[in-house]
Amino acid sequence: MMQLIRMCKKKSKWWKEKGPFFDVVISSRIRLARNLSLFPFPHKANNAQQKEILEKSEKAIKVNQYMKDSQILRFSELDKIDLQLLMERHLISYEHSLGQGYGGVAIDKKEVVSIMINEEDHLRLQVIYSGLQLFKAWALATKIDDKLNEKINYAFSHQWGYLTACPTNVGTGLRVSCMMHLPVLVLTRKIDAVLRNLSKIGFVVRGLYGEGTEVMGDLFQISNAVTLGQSEESIIDNIERVIKPIIEFERQSRIKLMEKNKVGVEDMIYRAYGILKYIRSITFSETMDLLSKIRLGLYLNLNLDCDISLVNELMILSQSAHIQELIGKPLSVVQRDELRAELIRKSFKK
Amino acid sequence: MMQLIRMCKKKSKWWKEKGPFFDVVISSRIRLARNLSLFPFPHKANNAQQKEILEKSEKAIKVNQYMKDSQILRFSELDKIDLQLLMERHLISYEHSLGQGYGGVAIDKKEVVSIMINEEDHLRLQVIYSGLQLFKAWALATKIDDKLNEKINYAFSHQWGYLTACPTNVGTGLRVSCMMHLPVLVLTRKIDAVLRNLSKIGFVVRGLYGEGTEVMGDLFQISNAVTLGQSEESIIDNIERVIKPIIEFERQSRIKLMEKNKVGVEDMIYRAYGILKYIRSITFSETMDLLSKIRLGLYLNLNLDCDISLVNELMILSQSAHIQELIGKPLSVVQRDELRAELIRKSFKK
Repeated sequence: MMQLIRMCKKKSKWWKEKGPFFDVVISSRIRLARNLSLFPFPHKANNAQQKEILEKSEKAIKVNQYMKDSQILRFSELDKIDLQLLMERHLISYEHSLGQGYGGVAIDKKEVVSIMINEEDHLRLQVIYSGLQLFKAWALATKIDDKLNEKINYAFSHQWGYLTACPTNVGTGLRVSCMMHLPVLVLTRKIDAVLRNLSKIGFVVRGLYGEGTEVMGDLFQISNAVTLGQSEESIIDNIERVIKPIIEFERQSRIKLMEKNKVGVEDMIYRAYGILKYIRSITFSETMDLLSKIRLGLYLNLNLDCDISLVNELMILSQSAHIQELIGKPLSVVQRDELRAELIRKSFKK
Repeated sequence: MMQLIRMCKKKSKWWKEKGPFFDVVISSRIRLARNLSLFPFPHKANNAQQKEILEKSEKAIKVNQYMKDSQILRFSELDKIDLQLLMERHLISYEHSLGQGYGGVAIDKKEVVSIMINEEDHLRLQVIYSGLQLFKAWALATKIDDKLNEKINYAFSHQWGYLTACPTNVGTGLRVSCMMHLPVLVLTRKIDAVLRNLSKIGFVVRGLYGEGTEVMGDLFQISNAVTLGQSEESIIDNIERVIKPIIEFERQSRIKLMEKNKVGVEDMIYRAYGILKYIRSITFSETMDLLSKIRLGLYLNLNLDCDISLVNELMILSQSAHIQELIGKPLSVVQRDELRAELIRKSFKK
């Protein structure tokens, strides 16, 4: 665990920054699925093949100029809580965190880049930035990808593009997503219509930890469904064309709600603030709910003695595995709720 | 209204003191029902008779040595909100606050003594003290009563005792009551059995404003039902014998609950504290609920930056008429909730 605790404490993480539209867009993520030619996909590969994939990938990453500051973690050296922490950090996927076989992940210092090894595909390259910065994330991802390709032969078909374990990723292998904070669309129940329309036009909305997971803290991960038959740039352009009106809709709704019921909104936010400053026990789900209100309050310029990077950070650090890493041992749910409360209270006192 | 606002602001009120068992008993109240001989009861008296009763009573009160510091208010000079304020302060009854006829009330500076005129009876003499001090309240009440009797001939029968408008008050004319704060008996649902037993043995339990009113803030007014066939001392002795085990039961339950779920209890109390420090709008009912938790927290020595006299005071000052007196004009419910929030927030900041 110790290795990861040190990781937790590093200062300059992407979520401390304020990217464009950070009031509504928490993060922009680009993910590329890649596989090594001549090897079976991970779920078909035997141990010896998985080991070889891991070693070949590590080697290619180590000489990649964009990954100089990174560390490579082998899952065989991590315990369950470590893996859960990486998942909570969005550095590995939920499936990957189950830790079957020869898994590994390379992570740079800022946690902007992560390269998962032996996930559903041999390689999953991910770039995250604060706010709406999909093209910037894409620019970095494609550079890293090109460099990796100099050392690794990718499974690629001139007809289909990049080959992937699951057909939904074939083609560009690109998944583009934004984590959006939509508290007022939720509060005013406009969110349902937004989500219905998104799925009609071919976008996928997910919860906090991706596919099939719960929505918490009014956070919605919106991503493209189609990866085939379009250029990467046009996929990214399409999703930006969808994200921007949602940003505008959320912002307008915030203003309208304040015009309609200023005191009610302020009361709701200040109560959340008062509770977070004094709690002695709290679940992660309630934490997210209250932090969501604080995040809204900061946008509305309420007199809250904290900033958005603290809120973003607490949304990450108050997750279960993070709480357990803090204390260095597994905890019961009750103990976690108490320690989470202490962490939050102290953060707000600072 | 102005007269009453000044009244609001006076410092040395009974509720600022800490009487015996103040952690469970908010107040002890003695009330004597008296009527002038040769006059019909108020509901049967015509205007001229009511006026005469009012004037005779005022005269007798003015020369009463125990009422030197008192002021006499005539309802004809008060508006609706003034009357409601007096009722919220427990200085007049709900029926009296409706302000029919020639009503009046004499109140001493500390608001320990009030003498209602032309209520259900011609005179209702009331003495309130902080905590469990029924005998002390009785001692003062009986002295004032004797002095009044020197100037007023009471309606009295050697067979029945003091005659009253309602037969339930005949005899001693004495109503003895304690306002009890029983948050943990409520929380642990033991209160229902307590209330059932009390009514079986001839005691009456009422809400915040007396008969038929709602219980708020875990406050229960417990009083005797019988006024006839017992001496005043034995009536008071009987109720003390009932009150003391309830005090003990509540205190024991507080200790047991802390042993069982310390963090849960502390969390509940600190959340209430956090909310009260930051609210922007709050109903009176929720205020009472949260203040009840703070009161419990003070007993449990939690680190709350306030004291019990502030809590007692806010339980009085945050009532609707009090809020309106503060600003000097009638307010809508929404405005009251906002002003109440402001009052509470500022009180906790001090």
